[in-house]
Amino acid sequence: MEKTNNAPIGVFDSGVGGLTVAREINRQLPRESVVYFGDTARVPYGSKSKDTIIRYSRQIVRFLQTKDVKAIVVACNTASAFALDTIEAELNIPVIGVVKPGAKSAIENTRNKRIGIIGTEGTIKSELYTEYIHGIDPEITVIGKACPLFCPLVEEGMLHDSVTYEIAGRYLDELKEQSIDSLILGCTHYPLLRSTIREIMGEGVNLVNPAYETAISLGELLKQKGMRADIHAKPDYTFYVSDDTERFRRFANSIMPFEIEETNRINIEEF
Amino acid sequence: MEKTNNAPIGVFDSGVGGLTVAREINRQLPRESVVYFGDTARVPYGSKSKDTIIRYSRQIVRFLQTKDVKAIVVACNTASAFALDTIEAELNIPVIGVVKPGAKSAIENTRNKRIGIIGTEGTIKSELYTEYIHGIDPEITVIGKACPLFCPLVEEGMLHDSVTYEIAGRYLDELKEQSIDSLILGCTHYPLLRSTIREIMGEGVNLVNPAYETAISLGELLKQKGMRADIHAKPDYTFYVSDDTERFRRFANSIMPFEIEETNRINIEEF
Repeated sequence: MEKTNNAPIGVFDSGVGGLTVAREINRQLPRESVVYFGDTARVPYGSKSKDTIIRYSRQIVRFLQTKDVKAIVVACNTASAFALDTIEAELNIPVIGVVKPGAKSAIENTRNKRIGIIGTEGTIKSELYTEYIHGIDPEITVIGKACPLFCPLVEEGMLHDSVTYEIAGRYLDELKEQSIDSLILGCTHYPLLRSTIREIMGEGVNLVNPAYETAISLGELLKQKGMRADIHAKPDYTFYVSDDTERFRRFANSIMPFEIEETNRINIEEF
Repeated sequence: MEKTNNAPIGVFDSGVGGLTVAREINRQLPRESVVYFGDTARVPYGSKSKDTIIRYSRQIVRFLQTKDVKAIVVACNTASAFALDTIEAELNIPVIGVVKPGAKSAIENTRNKRIGIIGTEGTIKSELYTEYIHGIDPEITVIGKACPLFCPLVEEGMLHDSVTYEIAGRYLDELKEQSIDSLILGCTHYPLLRSTIREIMGEGVNLVNPAYETAISLGELLKQKGMRADIHAKPDYTFYVSDDTERFRRFANSIMPFEIEETNRINIEEF
């Protein structure tokens, strides 16, 4: 029983973005171990179709199961929007995505019932955030805006650049005019642009980081199921990618609070 | 024999960029038929590693062979840089990439023996253009510059945008200072940014479009091998992609000189 509780949590994303979720798990649940998979050979997911994302997610889940994970976190908004229900129905371990925890926090915090959501084309077009929010409170107005250039800008490290500010201004102007009071950062890359988004949206808008909310929900879920790692557990983080490990490791070391010494490469198409 | 000569030419790219090559084949070799494959489920290739690109290229070649192609054009600079030699050695039909024709034209046209090359991170890091140019004339100075944001900007349709101009200015400044007189547009997306690049580089710099040069080389190669389509051949273009067909078809219709009515989707991982 203890062995199962100390089993790792599987966390996956299309690439490096999900590391913001792994970082929050590490902060909030420091005894838990994590097996992270980043699908760097097929990144990005944001502009790809639903059935392609479901196929990719199933392969990744099959891989994570070979690592005996006790739960799976879909740390990618696009995959959470497109594939969460499918993989949840096929598994007998807890599965958690980033959409519901982020949406829940926005619902709890909005005062004027006007919520904005920014994400990839896939996430915004899926309207899953809107559906989920309306399922809880149909009176809330949800305004979605795809920001397709944010991911490449983050991956290029242009976090505090005039070009990023200009692009962000264009994307966010529409949302500012709509007087939203909560904005969901609906892509795991976006928390890295938080200061730029904060500056443009102003102090009056609550920025919701689903990575943070997901780690809270994960902790509650594990506790409720009696699956938290025990007090003497020694946390272990292992990283797997589908493409070059060095590029990933450099990025990961700039995000995670500890030094990542080893990243392993696998052929995900074999799963 | 005639049947073989009227067989299609297989053209592949990571996504839509290779359509600039298909367009040139259509202009210069109007009797030839083409089977085009765009790997939209795994796009982009530019930031991925050599062995991943070789694996992807092999799968695509196996797919194109099921269409009885008489020759293959690797209409992607990254795949040409990483995988051309490998797949050429494994096939008994002519294979042509975009790197050599582009490099050849730049060598023929430079007066001051200073050539610039812009492309994806993969293409520039591979140094294949440099190697090939030095193999012909070791006295030529080759200055490479990766432009990772050009592809997403083109895919977003921001061809004539102030942000694109600003980014291009930063990327190209370095090359301007180096007094190059020829610049190879080493990614199939870049000819779509030609007017912006022209404005920044000035009239004194010769812009080399490898798509154009590749179609010329292809015509010469087919003629030399007695493989040109016969004079009564009715050209046929068919399009295959690994992800959503509608998104591809919209982009393709903005590039090709005829209406594309049908695009077919396949699971490339099965090949």
